[in-house]
Amino acid sequence: MSRVLNFSAGPAALPVEVLEQVREELLDWHGIGASVMEISHRGKAFLGIAQQAELDLRELLSIPANYKVLFLQGGATAQFAAVPLNLSLREATADYVNTGAWSKKAVAEARKYCSVNVAADAADSKYFSIPSQAKWKLTPSAAYLHYTPNETISGVEFHWVPETGDVPLVADFSSTILSRPIDVSRFGVIYAGAQKNMGPPGLVVVIVRDDLLGRARAHVPAVMDWRAMAADGSMYNTPASFSWYVAGLVFQWIKRQGGVAAMEKLNRAKAQTLYAAIDGSTLYRNPVDPACRSWMNVTFTLARAELDADFLEGAKGAGLMGLAGHRSVGGMRASIYNAMTLSGVEALIGYMRDFERRHG
Amino acid sequence: MSRVLNFSAGPAALPVEVLEQVREELLDWHGIGASVMEISHRGKAFLGIAQQAELDLRELLSIPANYKVLFLQGGATAQFAAVPLNLSLREATADYVNTGAWSKKAVAEARKYCSVNVAADAADSKYFSIPSQAKWKLTPSAAYLHYTPNETISGVEFHWVPETGDVPLVADFSSTILSRPIDVSRFGVIYAGAQKNMGPPGLVVVIVRDDLLGRARAHVPAVMDWRAMAADGSMYNTPASFSWYVAGLVFQWIKRQGGVAAMEKLNRAKAQTLYAAIDGSTLYRNPVDPACRSWMNVTFTLARAELDADFLEGAKGAGLMGLAGHRSVGGMRASIYNAMTLSGVEALIGYMRDFERRHG
Repeated sequence: MSRVLNFSAGPAALPVEVLEQVREELLDWHGIGASVMEISHRGKAFLGIAQQAELDLRELLSIPANYKVLFLQGGATAQFAAVPLNLSLREATADYVNTGAWSKKAVAEARKYCSVNVAADAADSKYFSIPSQAKWKLTPSAAYLHYTPNETISGVEFHWVPETGDVPLVADFSSTILSRPIDVSRFGVIYAGAQKNMGPPGLVVVIVRDDLLGRARAHVPAVMDWRAMAADGSMYNTPASFSWYVAGLVFQWIKRQGGVAAMEKLNRAKAQTLYAAIDGSTLYRNPVDPACRSWMNVTFTLARAELDADFLEGAKGAGLMGLAGHRSVGGMRASIYNAMTLSGVEALIGYMRDFERRHG
Repeated sequence: MSRVLNFSAGPAALPVEVLEQVREELLDWHGIGASVMEISHRGKAFLGIAQQAELDLRELLSIPANYKVLFLQGGATAQFAAVPLNLSLREATADYVNTGAWSKKAVAEARKYCSVNVAADAADSKYFSIPSQAKWKLTPSAAYLHYTPNETISGVEFHWVPETGDVPLVADFSSTILSRPIDVSRFGVIYAGAQKNMGPPGLVVVIVRDDLLGRARAHVPAVMDWRAMAADGSMYNTPASFSWYVAGLVFQWIKRQGGVAAMEKLNRAKAQTLYAAIDGSTLYRNPVDPACRSWMNVTFTLARAELDADFLEGAKGAGLMGLAGHRSVGGMRASIYNAMTLSGVEALIGYMRDFERRHG
């Protein structure tokens, strides 16, 4: 078996130690004689797994006691609907900041359920920058403000947290959760699909301040009803228990690495190293405003697009997977989530330099 | 490693060969150098897995070409909302047949979105029988008729398919899909959570006749929108790809066993053997109308309930897991889905007889 260096944007690389533990336990978890995917979510074994995962996540992110942590299904896309359904009435206005493809999807979904005010739009920069908050047109009585801290397609990231006063701040942290410390108390709701920094696809974590649990409209699908899910330990229905278990192993792995502070140090180093290599080349170029460059998704283009296919083919031969940019924008994208090592990034840079020497 | 005999109601036992294959491929699927849970759902490798799973399911159930097969998230509970949202307008009436706990949940969810006519209710039999269709009070212009072919808690199963003329028949097959052949053409929509007969939790399969895809109301959450999902190969958002993959391995396993006809033969034999043992004892009793006894969930009570704890403790010692009845009804329940072998059922019967000799 030979593992590649996996730069996929999501589903994405998981720590090899986690996968090895999953493999080890696959037919018999801790001597119970069955796989985690075969046991009742309401039995002692899985309840222990579920509770430990929540405790570890609470510890990693220093989640205050007045926040509920939910482990749901449907990814961020389900939460695009759940957010307005749980936090607004039809006649309400919600503010959204549009910084790219994922923001846009959140806006489109929210428009089904309430009035959306796009308080800021990064279109002027072709979504390669983030408008400063001074320019945002906020609604004073907004039901909430929604933004996307990291946009995976263009590779832009907020390195600051918006200030919204009494308006609940809601954020789609799918592609940046656990990559660095965050001050959860600044947020009303944080949600994140698991398939980048937490585990397999099919799981979405919702962290919601408990005073926001009473704002849902009358008719919310039960699987999207945060209050019902909070009341039932995310087990109003059968949860995605196996993915929850794998996410729990990832949380433990992060703790062993030194927690999110260690992840921040690693992720800053990886991103700085890779952006420096791009900026120092004549063949590669990153189009993003340096103040908003993503630590997680590093996009770059080749000076001559006709080399793209050769670049990707050679990368594959060098054991580097998942470097093609999103199909909507082309170019290249190296997603370097927590599980990507610094030596993995250095191997990518080595390949890029070698390719430049040969084609530059 | 020692595997128990797992009678859990769901998540439930999977074929050991499937789990072994998952384990074998966990860090490196078919030489690609990554786990299935780490790769893009839009890449060649996963698209191949996804398409093969659909083809195999189509073959197993002889699904006609004019039906779409969707692989979604949120289990049957998400579909409890998706059914009225996709098939009715708010002013419409939908007929529901209430044969137990799962029917009731479907009814409660549907009432959020349309008028529900409970066309038949098994309350008179304490949900241990199924009212014959002659007694149902159907709405001639109903948007659809919904029923639950198998109720896991009481252990009642339809051994016939309702006749609804032009009214689309919608069925929650979560606990009985693939346990025997069905005539899909009799149904408008079949849906089934994976965690009993198909794979890990976190996946729900929806089989929908394509002429029904144009009936959704204007605002359906994208993750529940069958038409959007059908148009995008169930990848409008990131699917539960790892669960989809495991389900595909289960489909291949069923094919190797001889398909659903072989499953039917096996499941009939398992159920008959177990019910005969119960009926032939003085200690055990099954309360279900013999015409409606479930092949999948065999419930039984002990003549003296004070023996329940001893029975379960002894079962655990004998390597028999998951026999406690649902917490809402107590007693015992042996769930004997496809992955349970006849010898496993015989081992259970051996234990039951031994227990009866000691306590009868």
